[in-house]
Amino acid sequence: MKNVARLGEFGLIETLKTYQNLLPRVVKGIGDDAAVLKVRGGRYLLFTTDMLVEDVHFTRRMNARAVGRKALACNLSDVAAMGGEPLFAVVSLGIPGQISTRYVSHLYAGMWAVAQEFGVSIVGGDTVRSQKVVVNIALLGEVEKRRLIRRQGARPGDWIFVSGPLGGSLKSGRHLTFTPRVREARFLVEKFKPSAMMDLSDGLAGDLGHILKASCVGALIEEKLIPCHRGVTPDRALTDGEDFELLFTMPGVRARKLLEYKGPEKFRFYPVGVVRPRREGFCMVRSDGRVEQLKDRGFRHF
Amino acid sequence: MKNVARLGEFGLIETLKTYQNLLPRVVKGIGDDAAVLKVRGGRYLLFTTDMLVEDVHFTRRMNARAVGRKALACNLSDVAAMGGEPLFAVVSLGIPGQISTRYVSHLYAGMWAVAQEFGVSIVGGDTVRSQKVVVNIALLGEVEKRRLIRRQGARPGDWIFVSGPLGGSLKSGRHLTFTPRVREARFLVEKFKPSAMMDLSDGLAGDLGHILKASCVGALIEEKLIPCHRGVTPDRALTDGEDFELLFTMPGVRARKLLEYKGPEKFRFYPVGVVRPRREGFCMVRSDGRVEQLKDRGFRHF
Repeated sequence: MKNVARLGEFGLIETLKTYQNLLPRVVKGIGDDAAVLKVRGGRYLLFTTDMLVEDVHFTRRMNARAVGRKALACNLSDVAAMGGEPLFAVVSLGIPGQISTRYVSHLYAGMWAVAQEFGVSIVGGDTVRSQKVVVNIALLGEVEKRRLIRRQGARPGDWIFVSGPLGGSLKSGRHLTFTPRVREARFLVEKFKPSAMMDLSDGLAGDLGHILKASCVGALIEEKLIPCHRGVTPDRALTDGEDFELLFTMPGVRARKLLEYKGPEKFRFYPVGVVRPRREGFCMVRSDGRVEQLKDRGFRHF
Repeated sequence: MKNVARLGEFGLIETLKTYQNLLPRVVKGIGDDAAVLKVRGGRYLLFTTDMLVEDVHFTRRMNARAVGRKALACNLSDVAAMGGEPLFAVVSLGIPGQISTRYVSHLYAGMWAVAQEFGVSIVGGDTVRSQKVVVNIALLGEVEKRRLIRRQGARPGDWIFVSGPLGGSLKSGRHLTFTPRVREARFLVEKFKPSAMMDLSDGLAGDLGHILKASCVGALIEEKLIPCHRGVTPDRALTDGEDFELLFTMPGVRARKLLEYKGPEKFRFYPVGVVRPRREGFCMVRSDGRVEQLKDRGFRHF
């Protein structure tokens, strides 16, 4: 019998997909950053969830505010990645009976701070006993139908961008303190309409692989273009998880305009390569000019 | 420093309420069975979540299908209790790396069966590593604005009903196999408009206490009217948790019509007492005629 460790997360997601029983109102279910649900009035609801578990994603020694902040920020990042605006969250908390209420208050204070910052209402939840601390947040957002961005729209010739430097997120603690790119994503969908977009949670190599697969295309990225955090090698920037930057593609004409944009918003986006026909595969030009085939090298959860 | 065990769940909920930052579109956040969110078109979205933790709510030896079924059924029960129709669910799963995929498949099969039965689409989720199995489901539903039922509408003179026999749910295993009262609730809101409604998860005494508090009223219930499962004493029926029956109130005129109803729907509802002015407190007439003051005697999570 296979166990989950051997099947891997993506194998598991494939298995779970068979359990989707989609109504016509489900525009997009499992397989993107958030579910897309048809509602009245020209907008889609976005509905996503993330679970953080003690001693897997965080330890009891870490700042509880930061853990709470992250639990919501991951979800915000998912809604941003679809081009949407986050609206409502429900929070489930599993907590050991002997934990201090101070710890729990700090968890909530962290969530609340980021909720305030992005105009999100925490509208409910569940609190249960658990041996380890478990934080699960489900988030609802909305996006105008014409502004929804999925993973499947990348076309050969599109430029590939990321919204910030990558790598070393877990080691540096940035995985707890990152700012979800909600504003950047709204700026992009309102002014430059990316052809595909997602948030970087499993590393550039793995996540770009998801966009390429969903869009039936290949890509050529350049090692020297990958923006790296200080002290991070391009190889780590390529495979480290939990950056929570945006990864998106855009036709060349709009891409050039984006790089020349001189509006009041001071966002910076980094081109890292171009989309190619599928038959050309997924490759990277190394700094020394060698071309290397990239396999799926993202962060693995199991 | 207080710990959670001493504060108790309801103290905790009070604390958490202070973290609600409500937008005008939140009709109801923390403090009812599901959040109520204004959307366009004369309907509210209902948004709720429930977490089940291994060795707290279930053990690994229990049928995984039943556990999966329950995880969704609890949420369905919450949406039913507001008068709504369940629509979309997202599922987070925390699982040990060495667990069999068969176990996980069975969990999902259980969810899927109940989702199918009630027309719910599982539209996304998250799967993470965890020492213990954790299942969290968030559910979105909808209700026509005029059909929304909350906890706060009970008025003196209203009759108090439950939708089925109570007690012994955990001991008998019914807590895993119960049918969420979605159809019964829709029947009630469409034809008889209860004045207040909730689902029984913490026992009749405790949960009726919530309705009374929210509605600023008292109540008199009769021991001999309480429908009990076979082998369950009225005292257990009053305090046992996880019945997941509906508890609702309704003006006497409609209540009498409900009891005389002769339509195609074969639902049965049990009157257990009447709502009284607040000053008369929350009392029960024992079988021997004694009147007893009821305190909050529901199931405690910590």
